[in-house]
Formats: sequence, structure tokens, C-alpha cells
Amino acid sequence: MTEGVTFEFLDVPDDHFAEDEEVYGGLAAEVRRLVDLTIRSRSGAAEVRTATARLREVNDLLARDTRPGPAGVAFNATGRAWNWGNAVVGERNAIAPPLVVEHDGPGESRATVHLGAAYEGPPGMVHGGVSALLLDHLMGETASSGFTRVTMTGTLTLRYVAPLPLGEVRLAGRITEDDGRKVLVTATIGTAEQVAVEATGLFIVPSWAGTNGPGN
Amino acid sequence: MTEGVTFEFLDVPDDHFAEDEEVYGGLAAEVRRLVDLTIRSRSGAAEVRTATARLREVNDLLARDTRPGPAGVAFNATGRAWNWGNAVVGERNAIAPPLVVEHDGPGESRATVHLGAAYEGPPGMVHGGVSALLLDHLMGETASSGFTRVTMTGTLTLRYVAPLPLGEVRLAGRITEDDGRKVLVTATIGTAEQVAVEATGLFIVPSWAGTNGPGN
Repeated sequence: MTEGVTFEFLDVPDDHFAEDEEVYGGLAAEVRRLVDLTIRSRSGAAEVRTATARLREVNDLLARDTRPGPAGVAFNATGRAWNWGNAVVGERNAIAPPLVVEHDGPGESRATVHLGAAYEGPPGMVHGGVSALLLDHLMGETASSGFTRVTMTGTLTLRYVAPLPLGEVRLAGRITEDDGRKVLVTATIGTAEQVAVEATGLFIVPSWAGTNGPGN
Repeated sequence: MTEGVTFEFLDVPDDHFAEDEEVYGGLAAEVRRLVDLTIRSRSGAAEVRTATARLREVNDLLARDTRPGPAGVAFNATGRAWNWGNAVVGERNAIAPPLVVEHDGPGESRATVHLGAAYEGPPGMVHGGVSALLLDHLMGETASSGFTRVTMTGTLTLRYVAPLPLGEVRLAGRITEDDGRKVLVTATIGTAEQVAVEATGLFIVPSWAGTNGPGN
């Protein structure tokens, strides 16, 4: 299914998918609500069976025409990228919170996101692996200097220093070393008051991807 | 919302939630299908708007009675645990594949799971952060020797050695050092043919949780 999947170039303007983004974004928002309710609902068996049957009809409607594989990643000549299916930032992916990464300047980024019941590990706490998932993504985007170059994760080290309650969490990352081939990024996730996880990542710029520094 | 949330003791038999597990498990399976279709459907705007409206009705039905916070984790006197909301293994959590961890013996575990379009990072590949998410969970379960003791993640180090295509992936983990207070676990995720990520984790047995070794 996934062999030969690559970044896809599309010769389209930035707003080419505006309607798709609006209608599928609206659907994904409702799916995120359903994911949460499937965990938190106290409805009885009869009601849940009714909900499941109606949901099956919705699925059958959406299943009439589907792409054979995953969403992939597309981009156009202006550098606008579409990664609707991405597990962390994909607007059409209800698994993704989605994270919205803000790039403050070359090599610096941050994000604020609300993590609800679907991201739980220990009771009431964000799953430690979810912290790793979000940090990996933010750090990769930071290393790539806002998608101006391709980077691949080499190693990732996470230090868990405090539990992280579900609710609003904050991430911040920055490049601390960069020789154009190897990029070192440090990042944290936590609440407004306390860091929960400290991370260090080594990202590699593949030889086929050029050696431009941040901002180029 | 999450303050004071703890592991909850329930004085109930192992099969107390059998009907809930069946009906909500069936709902969650259909929600996982919807998450996938929301990414892969090529339905037009009118059909997607219809699907969204019908989905909103399903959500409103399930929203009539909900628990105020996340699912939490409950257990009973026989050691049976319920963590329906867990982000990796929760049966009612459509974000979770869900992973089913098999414990081969004291300090050894493995899992096989299919990762579809919702777990994508690079085109056609499993998101590197998803590998971290699944590894963190499997390693924590391994360190806890199948829930016979409480452990907390101290540090986690991941080495990315090859891309991991979407599809069937395999995880394996084992305890390599254990002095009853600090537990070292190594683990991998990959395909049947190739390891994609190698991980090492240091897990801590909190002083309030006793110092029993594996199998006790």
C-alpha cells in the first residue's frame, strides 16, 4: 500500500483546496468530539447501539469514494504544504489535536494545545508517550526551520521530570547547534507553571536535501 | 478537571463491565473506521456536509449523559484493570490502535498492530512520534512486569535507524537491568524484516510503591 509514496508536487494556487479544507475540517472537528464522547459517555446499551448503527450509515456514505492509500503530503510552487493526514498536525486527522506550531523566528517554535480525555495515560494525566509524540513533531518542524529544508530524526532523548495533567499544555523548542548537516534541538512540554518533559533531539539533513542553514 | 484523579478501586467481579465493553467496544471500532474515512474519503462537499450533520446528531445522543472528566483507571481485588480511555491501549479510545501487549514471561513483552492512514508522518510512513508513543507504552508495561508493580518513566532514548512504512508493525521489549528501584528496558519497533527504532528507557519504582521484583 505504501511503497513508492513520496512528497507530491501539485501545480495549484495556495487556496486551491479552500472548500475541501472547510468541509473536511468541519467533519474532523465533529469526529474529535465523537472520539471524546465515546470515552466519556454514560449512555445505556440501547442508546449506544443506536448511535453505532447511525454511525455505520455515516461511514458507508463516506466510504463510497476513497483514496486507496494514506493522505500523503503535497506541496505547491509557493511552498504551501498539505499534510491533512498527519498524526499530530493533520486537519483531517481526528487523532491529531491538531497541534498548531508557531515559528517565532529562525530555529524557534512554540505551541499551545488543549489535551482532553483521549490523551490520557495515568489517571487524569497526559500519556507520557503523547508528550513524546508532540515533542517529536514540534522538534522536527523546528529543525527544518519551518519547512525550508528536509530533516530526519536521528535520536530523541526525553527526561520526564513531572506529571502533566490533562488540559492546556505548552510546548517550546529551539535549535541549539546547527552545522548544516546535523541539527540539535531542545524542547519542553508542560503547563504554564511547570515543565513536565525535557527533550533533546538530533536531526539529520540528508545529503540529497542540500545543506542550507535556517532561514534559507 | 483532573486534580485529585487517582487509580480507583472497584469492588466488582472481572466480568462486571462485560456488556459495556461489548457495546462501547463496538462503537469505538466504528469510530476508528470514521477517523480513517475522514482522512481518505473523496466524497464531495454536499455529501460531507450531510455526513457531518448526521454525525452531530449521533454526538448529541451520546452527549446526553457523560462523566465530567476523563475515564481514569480502575481496578478490582483480583488485579483486573480497566483503562478504557488510555491513548495507546484504551478500548473505548479511537486514538488508540488499540495496542494489545502480550507478556511472554517476566520482563518480556511484544505486540503486533496494524497502523493505517491516521498514523502517518512522512508520506506513507509511520510518524516518528507515533513510534515513540507506542514504544513508551510497551516499555512501561514491560517495566511494571504486567502491572504487578507501579513504575514511572524516568528517561526514554530513541534511535531512528530506518523509516517505518504504514501497515503491520511489531514491537518487542525486555528488562535488561532491575535492582527493584530502577528498571532498564530496551525495545524495538519495526516490520517483520527490519527494525526501525531502537529504544532504551529507565523506569523508576516509586518509594511508596514497594520494591518487589518482576513476577512478585
